[in-house]
Parts: sequence; C-alpha cells; structure tokens
Amino acid sequence: MTRIDIPRTTGLIRDAVRADDGFVPLHAPRFAGAEWRYLKDCLDTGWVSSVGAYVDRFERDLAAVFGARRAVATVNGTAALHVALRLAGVGQGDEALIPALTFVATANAVRYCGAVSHFVDSEWATLGLDPDALDVWLTETAERRAGGPVNRRTGRRIAAVVPMHAFGHPARIDRLLAVAADWEIPVVEDAAESLGSLLDGAPLGARGLIGATSFNGNKIVTTGGGGAILTDDDALADRAKHLTTTAKQPHPWAFIHDEPGFNYRLPNVNAALGCAQLEQLPAMLADKRRLAERYRAVFRGVEGARVFEEPAGARSNYWLNALVLDDPTDRDPLLEATNAAGLMTRPVWTLMSDLPMHADCPAAPLPVARDIAGRLINIPSSAALGAERAA
Amino acid sequence: MTRIDIPRTTGLIRDAVRADDGFVPLHAPRFAGAEWRYLKDCLDTGWVSSVGAYVDRFERDLAAVFGARRAVATVNGTAALHVALRLAGVGQGDEALIPALTFVATANAVRYCGAVSHFVDSEWATLGLDPDALDVWLTETAERRAGGPVNRRTGRRIAAVVPMHAFGHPARIDRLLAVAADWEIPVVEDAAESLGSLLDGAPLGARGLIGATSFNGNKIVTTGGGGAILTDDDALADRAKHLTTTAKQPHPWAFIHDEPGFNYRLPNVNAALGCAQLEQLPAMLADKRRLAERYRAVFRGVEGARVFEEPAGARSNYWLNALVLDDPTDRDPLLEATNAAGLMTRPVWTLMSDLPMHADCPAAPLPVARDIAGRLINIPSSAALGAERAA
Repeated sequence: MTRIDIPRTTGLIRDAVRADDGFVPLHAPRFAGAEWRYLKDCLDTGWVSSVGAYVDRFERDLAAVFGARRAVATVNGTAALHVALRLAGVGQGDEALIPALTFVATANAVRYCGAVSHFVDSEWATLGLDPDALDVWLTETAERRAGGPVNRRTGRRIAAVVPMHAFGHPARIDRLLAVAADWEIPVVEDAAESLGSLLDGAPLGARGLIGATSFNGNKIVTTGGGGAILTDDDALADRAKHLTTTAKQPHPWAFIHDEPGFNYRLPNVNAALGCAQLEQLPAMLADKRRLAERYRAVFRGVEGARVFEEPAGARSNYWLNALVLDDPTDRDPLLEATNAAGLMTRPVWTLMSDLPMHADCPAAPLPVARDIAGRLINIPSSAALGAERAA
Repeated sequence: MTRIDIPRTTGLIRDAVRADDGFVPLHAPRFAGAEWRYLKDCLDTGWVSSVGAYVDRFERDLAAVFGARRAVATVNGTAALHVALRLAGVGQGDEALIPALTFVATANAVRYCGAVSHFVDSEWATLGLDPDALDVWLTETAERRAGGPVNRRTGRRIAAVVPMHAFGHPARIDRLLAVAADWEIPVVEDAAESLGSLLDGAPLGARGLIGATSFNGNKIVTTGGGGAILTDDDALADRAKHLTTTAKQPHPWAFIHDEPGFNYRLPNVNAALGCAQLEQLPAMLADKRRLAERYRAVFRGVEGARVFEEPAGARSNYWLNALVLDDPTDRDPLLEATNAAGLMTRPVWTLMSDLPMHADCPAAPLPVARDIAGRLINIPSSAALGAERAA
C-alpha cells in the first residue's frame, strides 16, 4: 500500500485550485446572473412568500433539468425526502433501505415517517448503493409477501429503497430499478447532489416512483435553503403540493385542512434565487468539469492517491471532487494538513450505521461503504475555481 | 339581535382603508427599508445559506423585541413550534392543550411530536385560551400525578399547554401561567401573531418555558418564510439550536450527529430580510394602530357590528383587525360581499375540533370559541393602509 507525501499532496491540491494562498472553501456558491434583479422584483411586487411567480417558474425549470414531468419546490431537501418517502407509502413501523454512506438527512427523513432505516452497502464504481449487493442481501433477509417484502429478522415491511447519487456520480439506477421491481419495492431517488448529472445521456431524479433534491448553500445551485420533489406521476405531484402546503383545500376564505400536512413550501424569494441560479447551470457545470480535469492532470502519475472519476456511461456534475487514498492511515493527516493550509477538505459522512442513534437499525454487511469512508476525502470544488479566467 | 346592512358595511370598510377601488389584500408586507441592501450584501459576500451574520443578528434583534433572553431562528413558525413542544417534553402518546381556535400549525406541531391535541375554549376578552375555563376543565378531567397531570378519560399525560395570542391580542398569560404552575404543566407560548404586542408594558413570547413565533409572508414582519424559538433558558436555547441544525456536533470536518435532529435552520438570505423588516417595526406598528383607530371611528355608532379592541392592559400589534357581528347569519353574506368588492376578508379558522382529522382528539366544551368563529371576520390590515400619507 503506497503512502502519500502529505505536504506534497497538499501542494498539489493548492496547484489545482490555482489559488496562491488564503482560504479555499469546499464549495462556495456563485451569484453571477440575474439573482439581484429577481430578488428586487420580489421586493418591488411584494411577493416574497408562499405564492408567487418564481415558485411556479422554478418548478417548471426544475422539472426540465431533472427530466421529470413535475417538480414541487420545498423548503429544503430533507422536507422533500420526507414527503417523497411518505408518498411512496413509507409509514409507521416500516423499513426503508438506504445506503449507510449518505448524509444524515436520508435517515432522518425515514424516521420522520415513523419508519426505521435499514442500511445497505455501496460500490466503488459509483460511490452509490450497490444494486447487486442489495439483491443478495434481500435474498438472505427478506421474504416476499403481498404488499411488499418483509424483513424476516425484524418482521417489518420493506417499504422503499433510496439510492443516492453521491457527490453527483449517478448510481446504477437502472439495475437498481430492476432489482427493486423484482422485489416490488418502490424506489425513492435521492438526487440531492446530482443536479445536472446525466446517465446514458439523460438526467436523473425521477426514474423511480418519486425523487427529491436539495438547494442548500453548499450545492451547485442554491436557494439559500430549498429542495424539490420530483416525479413523473401527476397524481403524486398534486399530493406532494397539497401535503407541503398544510393540506389546505382551495377556497376563497375558508380554512379546511383535510389531512395532517406540513409547512414545507419554498418561499418565492428563495425560488427567485433558484431561477437565477439555474440559468447559470450550464456555465457552472462546465467550470466544475474543468476543475475536475485539472485535479486529474495534477494527480496524474502520483502514487498513493487518485482523483475519483465519473462512472462509465455517466456525465457527472462533479459537485464535490474526491481524492481516493490507497492507505486509510493517510486520511486524517491529510485532512489535518489541508485544513491547516486553508484548503477546506472533509471525509465522507460517518457511516449511518456507526451513529449511536442508529444502533437499533438493521444493516447489511458494509465492507465497501466502510472502505470508501476510510479512504476518500472531498477537496475544494467551487465552480469559480474552474472558471476560464482562473486558467 | 341586530342585523347589519351588508352593502353599507362593505362601504364602511372601503372608507376606512381609504382605497377608492381595486383589490385590497388582507395583509401585504411592506419593504421600505434596508431589505434591498441587506439582500445584496448576502449575494456579494456569498453568504446566503445556513450560517451567516444576518442569522446571528436576527436572533439578537428578535430576543430584544420579544423580551426573551434567547431566540433561535427557524425555517418557519411550524418548525419553531414543533421544536419548542419537543423541548417542553411533549412526546409520543402525550396530550397538549391547545385552543380549538388557532391555525392548523399548532395542532400539526403537536402531532409531529407523536402527541395528541386536546382542545380547550377561548374567551371573548382576548380571543385567546381562557385560563379560568381551563382550570375548571382540568379539575373535571385531569388527575394530578408525579410527572404531570393525566387525562382520566384517555390515560394520557398532559404534557404542555399552548396559548396563542390571536391576531396579536395578548391572551391572559399571567393567569394562565398560574393555572399551569398549579397543575405542573409547562407553557409553550405560541407568539406567531404577536410580534410587537405588549402586555402590562412588556413584550411577550417567552413568559412560559419556551415560545415560538412566525415570519410568514402574511405577518407584520416577514422573512418570506421563517420563525423563531424564544426562551429565557440558555440550555433550552442551545438544545433548540442543536436540534434545528441536524444535531451535528461541532467539528472542523467530521459528521457526528448525536441525536435525531431537523433541518430547520433559517437561511441567511431570509434572515437578512428579517433584519431589515425589524428595523421598521415601530413604524409598522404605528401605521397599524392608526388603521385600527380608523376602523373604530368608521364603525362608531354602527349597530350590529363592532371593531375588536385590544384587551385591558394590552397594547396589541393589531396584526389583523377584526369585525365582530351581532348576528352569525350576517357572516357569510358579508364575506361574500366584501371579497366580491375586492376587499379581502376571511373568517377565523375552522375550529380544530371540527376538522375530521381531529375527530379522535379530546375537547373541552367550546361554546365561546364556537361563538367567536361564527361572528368574527378579519378585515384588511396592511400597515400601508394606515400610513400617514394615506390620511
């Protein structure tokens, strides 16, 4: 196992980002378009809140970019996932299969439904959920029943599977859809990180029953905080809109709420920011791809570390670039050295199964997820770093 | 019972708002201060999201205006109530006492805790929860136990009482605090509508254990969508901050979430709007008071309808002005006529106990809440309508 030279590796990252000194964040937003104008329009018209033209436009723009028939904007990605899981039928006492290697929002959203996360393994090729390992694990653990498979050990219904496209690299969603269809498990696509990514030439986010995405401040396109539910199913989209807006029946004045709903709508002012940001998506994707290529060039021939590349058939958004180390003992010293040098880096998330609050959650064997978590770090990835002017 | 003349009453409302024709909304925001500058500052600095100087400032400003030691900004008022209830100890299988006459968010927040709403009556003097009726009802229904009273009929613990200051008129919070203390029930103050209101010369929102407020688009001060948790207890405020920010432990890079948390933080861009709006609160309160006085003047001597006035000892914010009709059969014709004439009006909320989704929730007798719901309508109340220039 080849060890890396920590100071030299730190220097290579500094070279790639072409920033002589000073702090380089992991991912900074860029506001170079109509943000200002659209925000002013919100103030001038007084439409800053729940209803407004930018919400409608943002939803239309999102549907197009994610290749979904419908998008329903939400206050953040966690809210979108929560409602997507609910609409997929995840309820009290169910289990949802999620990768152990994901952000905590996925597991929290399962919990908000009264359900239990059931952690499954990832694969190195995509960093996402491994559909083949899933199939093997289901064969070992689950029993086919009417209404969906049941976990033999816990007796709980397996109500959904939630692939997540880590750092913008598409998971093998088509193989996963086949496995899930065979097991009669609805697929809820967690597209929080994959805005603009393509697989086999087409966008992804609503290839399963329903999906969710995020526009948090660290995402390629940000609305401050925001998210969306994605689906090709009009009835599900209508239900999503209803549930995210306190389940109020339309009426000129009366307050009739016909089921327990949520206050999950995206304010118009945040949607305005999103509309302006989406207009710049092609430029941001180009800049991020240029930065990814620069990382690859800088690390070419370096032993002990490689830059993670998009999976076969995918055109990734390279939301967060990643460095994969041969030797896991290099990880923490490199994190220490880079952050001390003003280059913001981070490991992937703590495996969900390792958080004490998930001690009672079932989990498949997780050898690959654990290997990824031990050897992969994210490195600075702002679009601005890849802009031509920085070349 | 005196009936009103519907066309004449519609005309009087039109006179009071001094708008010759055209649509008059129920409550429109006003952006006449530094909104523009602060939003631009967010874009220029790139700080639009979770962390940022405006969030910190907004929390400080809010604590001051609500007379609370601490404020924790949240993504909306529902989120603030949810976390406030959780921190008051409301959990699975508990009951929370809430007025039947409130917005659905109060009942939804109780449900998110896994608890059941238990509806209680309001009083005409304040439009809020009646502390004396509550005391009588508790004597009839509840049994004192260690850990708090238990509902004798359902066997469930009564874990909190949630007064709400309807339309900005302070409930009799001090009497309620005494009743709640006697019964050992924590008070969670729903101050969603009472920003800037005073009772006995002091603001309210954190007189109980913890409180919550809202900055939805229809509120006096709006952040597009937003809210805050209010408390004098530093430990509770710290817990609130932790729970609303995914319960992530502070660390330069590691992702350790030590309990199930929420993505409930307010984005910096919305907080910036809030800071600018709060600077204008005194002017907005003055304009709203002027409009309330104009309504009173216009309806002086009119039989069959009166303008609702602030309770004794209170200086209300007059968030939404209200017309109280003698005869409930006048309500719907007046709603029809005013809305048809472009004057946006609405009844109060459907009593929570009347919504089918609450059919299984316990309820005290609700004669006053039902009477209020039958005879009170809200009338246009934007601050701009009371501005001097409109005089």
